[in-house]
Amino acid sequence: MKISMDRTIELLKSAEDVLILTHKNPDGDTLGCGVALCLVLQGMGKRARVVNGDVIPKRYDYLFEGIEMPGFEPKFVVAVDVADNKLLGDMLDADYGDKVDLCIDHHGTNVDYAKETYVVPEDGAASLTLYRMFRAMGVEITPAIATALYTGISTDTGCFRYSNASSECYRAGADLIDLGADNANINVLMFETKPREYFELLSSVLSSMRVFCDGKVIVFKVTNEMFEKTGATPDQCDAIAAMSRQFEGALCGITMKEKQSGGFKFSLRTHEPLDAAALCAAFGGGGHKRAAGCDAEDEEKVLSDLIALIDKELN
Amino acid sequence: MKISMDRTIELLKSAEDVLILTHKNPDGDTLGCGVALCLVLQGMGKRARVVNGDVIPKRYDYLFEGIEMPGFEPKFVVAVDVADNKLLGDMLDADYGDKVDLCIDHHGTNVDYAKETYVVPEDGAASLTLYRMFRAMGVEITPAIATALYTGISTDTGCFRYSNASSECYRAGADLIDLGADNANINVLMFETKPREYFELLSSVLSSMRVFCDGKVIVFKVTNEMFEKTGATPDQCDAIAAMSRQFEGALCGITMKEKQSGGFKFSLRTHEPLDAAALCAAFGGGGHKRAAGCDAEDEEKVLSDLIALIDKELN
Repeated sequence: MKISMDRTIELLKSAEDVLILTHKNPDGDTLGCGVALCLVLQGMGKRARVVNGDVIPKRYDYLFEGIEMPGFEPKFVVAVDVADNKLLGDMLDADYGDKVDLCIDHHGTNVDYAKETYVVPEDGAASLTLYRMFRAMGVEITPAIATALYTGISTDTGCFRYSNASSECYRAGADLIDLGADNANINVLMFETKPREYFELLSSVLSSMRVFCDGKVIVFKVTNEMFEKTGATPDQCDAIAAMSRQFEGALCGITMKEKQSGGFKFSLRTHEPLDAAALCAAFGGGGHKRAAGCDAEDEEKVLSDLIALIDKELN
Repeated sequence: MKISMDRTIELLKSAEDVLILTHKNPDGDTLGCGVALCLVLQGMGKRARVVNGDVIPKRYDYLFEGIEMPGFEPKFVVAVDVADNKLLGDMLDADYGDKVDLCIDHHGTNVDYAKETYVVPEDGAASLTLYRMFRAMGVEITPAIATALYTGISTDTGCFRYSNASSECYRAGADLIDLGADNANINVLMFETKPREYFELLSSVLSSMRVFCDGKVIVFKVTNEMFEKTGATPDQCDAIAAMSRQFEGALCGITMKEKQSGGFKFSLRTHEPLDAAALCAAFGGGGHKRAAGCDAEDEEKVLSDLIALIDKELN
């Protein structure tokens, strides 16, 4: 059931022993919301703690510094920035997926799995939704709470870069800086720090660049030898696939990544009018309109077939 | 002579036929300031135009769209975001270097070459200095002016990411979005679209990477041969200089860029506790605490002296 901000505040005020759930593969927004809500509830004299189904990456450690996470039998369960109970991960979903009393979220796609759901799809981050609510509640926003909320807004808007960064996001950012969020250091941690292996991989991958269809298609090839040589990990390849879309004039970026088990995984990133999902479907793959993938045994054969298909689409 | 905002407003109000000078190797802040001031003066019924000593990169075209740049014999010369008359470039410096009536700037290192100088070193961008002044003047901020000022603030703060992005920058950003700056598209143009030559240059530059001081200093060397081979332009090197700071564990990134006229230009990017301006000052250069530069004839000698200085600072 969808509810208003006032009803959400009422629920939080009367809640006791609150367990706060965040989504698997955690990001700055779900963790920022979790920590901020936990601190606000603790500030109201309640017991509260945050849990996540995955191991939380070390770069988020600063959010949790000095925060107590007491043990108790939960009497009220809140999920933050979790659009679907499946996103809690198998373990938390099994334990609490059907016992969520309140969900606070900003995803228009929220499946309404909680007993009561407060969702503001216009918000660039669930941390913005929480900030607005905390202001309405008149609670004190400590530096630690400001840090958590700033982290959520900044990470979900690509550091105030994407189209979801509304002027309200910027004003909230300003307020949270004034309230003690160390924006410069937070953003260095979240956006400006990459391991040296990443840059070494990037260097190798860029050397593999090939250009087709008059610059409209950019192709990178990432081999197991490159991973071995640089010590980079396969997940660091995601940022490289995203980069293939930044080429001026390119409508399709193709990243061919060799699999450890042999064969290649193709990642496509496209701009209008190319449909990445449709292109990949022709080779047994799938995904979204702007980002999709497929597997390939004979990678050069699939590449030339794919280029031919793109060429046909563009003419 | 350093002057106040009130005196600056007085000068602008009484000025006629205003020539606005911007710095060579132009960036979003100097151009944003130039265009915004030009439009404000034109809105006050004055003749005004913006000039630059270099060719302005095409990605800034949107700033100039539909703006008239009338011809006239200048009666008043203003420089914006220009810390030193040498930064006007040889031609503009020869013509106007000693005839600048007013300089509006945010560089603490401003050499006070103009008759009167209004400088606010705390401001993350000269566009913020101008925005505050325009608000004090009560002039109408049109969407084109908002676009120009937003561009300046966003580009000089790395899209609100660096330590110079104060809460006032964020509030100005929010206001300018509300006044018509299309922040999402501006940031795609400024940060998410790069010519293919840039990536080719990046590939060469990454191959030149050297590491000093146990990984605390990362050095890139960009030669004229790399520019020739890739077709990249020197301004595309700025993003590479910024990247040199992103290495995990690195406190200083040094980009050595060969100048067409011979010799090298060093760009430093630092994290706490290293002061880029102080380090460059030791070699006759200057800039900001986190980003500064200096010239070098014998680049490998300057590099080893600089590394020794950094090593001393860190120990």
